Amino acid sequence: MSLLVVGTVAFDQIETPFGKTDKILGGAATFIGMAASMLNVKAGIVSVIGGDFPQEYLDLMKEKNIDLSGIETVKDGKTFFWSGRYHNDMNSRDTLATELNVLESFQPIVPEGWKKPDVLMLGNLHPLVQKSVLNQLEERPKLVVLDTMNFWMDLTWNELMDVLQDVDVLTINDEEARQMSKEYSLVKAAKKILTMGPKTLIIKKGEHGALLFQGNHVFFAPALPLEDIFDPTGAGDTFAGGFSGFLAKTQNYSFENMKRAIIYGSALASFTVEKFGTERLAELTDEELIERLDVFKSLTNFDIEID
Amino acid sequence: MSLLVVGTVAFDQIETPFGKTDKILGGAATFIGMAASMLNVKAGIVSVIGGDFPQEYLDLMKEKNIDLSGIETVKDGKTFFWSGRYHNDMNSRDTLATELNVLESFQPIVPEGWKKPDVLMLGNLHPLVQKSVLNQLEERPKLVVLDTMNFWMDLTWNELMDVLQDVDVLTINDEEARQMSKEYSLVKAAKKILTMGPKTLIIKKGEHGALLFQGNHVFFAPALPLEDIFDPTGAGDTFAGGFSGFLAKTQNYSFENMKRAIIYGSALASFTVEKFGTERLAELTDEELIERLDVFKSLTNFDIEID
Repeated sequence: MSLLVVGTVAFDQIETPFGKTDKILGGAATFIGMAASMLNVKAGIVSVIGGDFPQEYLDLMKEKNIDLSGIETVKDGKTFFWSGRYHNDMNSRDTLATELNVLESFQPIVPEGWKKPDVLMLGNLHPLVQKSVLNQLEERPKLVVLDTMNFWMDLTWNELMDVLQDVDVLTINDEEARQMSKEYSLVKAAKKILTMGPKTLIIKKGEHGALLFQGNHVFFAPALPLEDIFDPTGAGDTFAGGFSGFLAKTQNYSFENMKRAIIYGSALASFTVEKFGTERLAELTDEELIERLDVFKSLTNFDIEID
Repeated sequence: MSLLVVGTVAFDQIETPFGKTDKILGGAATFIGMAASMLNVKAGIVSVIGGDFPQEYLDLMKEKNIDLSGIETVKDGKTFFWSGRYHNDMNSRDTLATELNVLESFQPIVPEGWKKPDVLMLGNLHPLVQKSVLNQLEERPKLVVLDTMNFWMDLTWNELMDVLQDVDVLTINDEEARQMSKEYSLVKAAKKILTMGPKTLIIKKGEHGALLFQGNHVFFAPALPLEDIFDPTGAGDTFAGGFSGFLAKTQNYSFENMKRAIIYGSALASFTVEKFGTERLAELTDEELIERLDVFKSLTNFDIEID
């Protein structure tokens, strides 16, 4: 029941119509790890931070039983920093600053004891960094999940196509699926992308839910209709963490179980957007998660007797 | 098991990236009636057409067992005509022409034998026309469903608010829900709209599915992910026809049954968009509908044991 996560551990500074933060805890691996920790899997992070990264953030992750032995600290370096401003509709945002800092020369090192994870979650990073982690493993994980974005499609297409050959599940958003496949229809896009390496594709549509494609199977998971989306930052990563965490925990990689994993991911993501950054995930209880899963059940389950 | 439908019977001329039609059969009541006919309910239409309306279109509707006794023919008048062009994404369209013609002075007359329908479906028309139909009934129907649009919110707000007092279910799209409530969040919008008269609200989100709100209950039905959306015209009306037709047929107006009704509406609408206008509905078989309902089941149903 082990999940190895590669991704950023970062500072985020966020502006929404509801307010503005200072530099707070962020990063894909942070959200993925915290989501997975709700599923009681052994999660370890491979990442890099600067000497400016506060101990309290590391303590928070340790409290969540996340193994930080794969996080390298560059004492005289600065932590990756992202700053963005969301528009009133909360569906679009402007990036105000991206300071790579210690990420610029990041060479991931998978620690001893983490070279045979059950599930590998490759967070959104340079495809060569993702590939390097895969290459350091002693056994091929039972499941490899990769997240990426338009940026890498624009700049490192060949490297991305190469690493995708070793990936089971790709997670991207709807616009990225269209860019990657050059198809507007998401069904056509999925068909094309499923010939590029991964046997399973998840298309994230934000407030419109997520689609899971595998062979001729399709599953749709809605996002929870919420009164307010306070801060969408990290929702996609939380979703990925819930998905890969659930699969690592249950050790069942069937399509039926991936459906459940997507619902867990969606339920966890619905908490992340309720507060700034990781705040809501940090305080989340098992009872709240169970209650939310029940809401998801009643949101979409119906019984039609088909004769 | 009777459904009375009030709405337009019209000519549509449609341009999509896939082609262009001549004047073809269209109109809200046409789609609603044809959808309901798939559910074997006794459906009757109240509408108006001009002397230019071809007998073959009337024959087509009669073949579907739709009662046309409430359709007035203005011999020297011209039938309502709408023409539109869809953009490449098929999500937005430009209206090229709207010729009201005989609709301009339409005074609906509910025929004898149709004054005690089980369900009344008030298609998108002037709220005073909708109200006039309600006033002609001898008994309050067990369910009154109303569809409207931004146009009537802009021009006839007070009349719309008045007729909504007598309505059980309102169906509008997401933008209209936002306009009507002055709330961006659809959950907040629904809460506000549910204080304006209807006890049940359906928000249609096109390719992103539909939300059903009643009290504190929410249900979400996805749209079917399709390779191509050939022509979206009439999808919303088909949905409304499937919804109201299913409820008229089953005579069960509970929230649980409304969930099923929404799935029937979504399944029927997924056929409409496969061809131009009513073409696909006209040739649709029971077997195809049952098969499609099964696809909807597997699209969203999952089993999570919550302990």
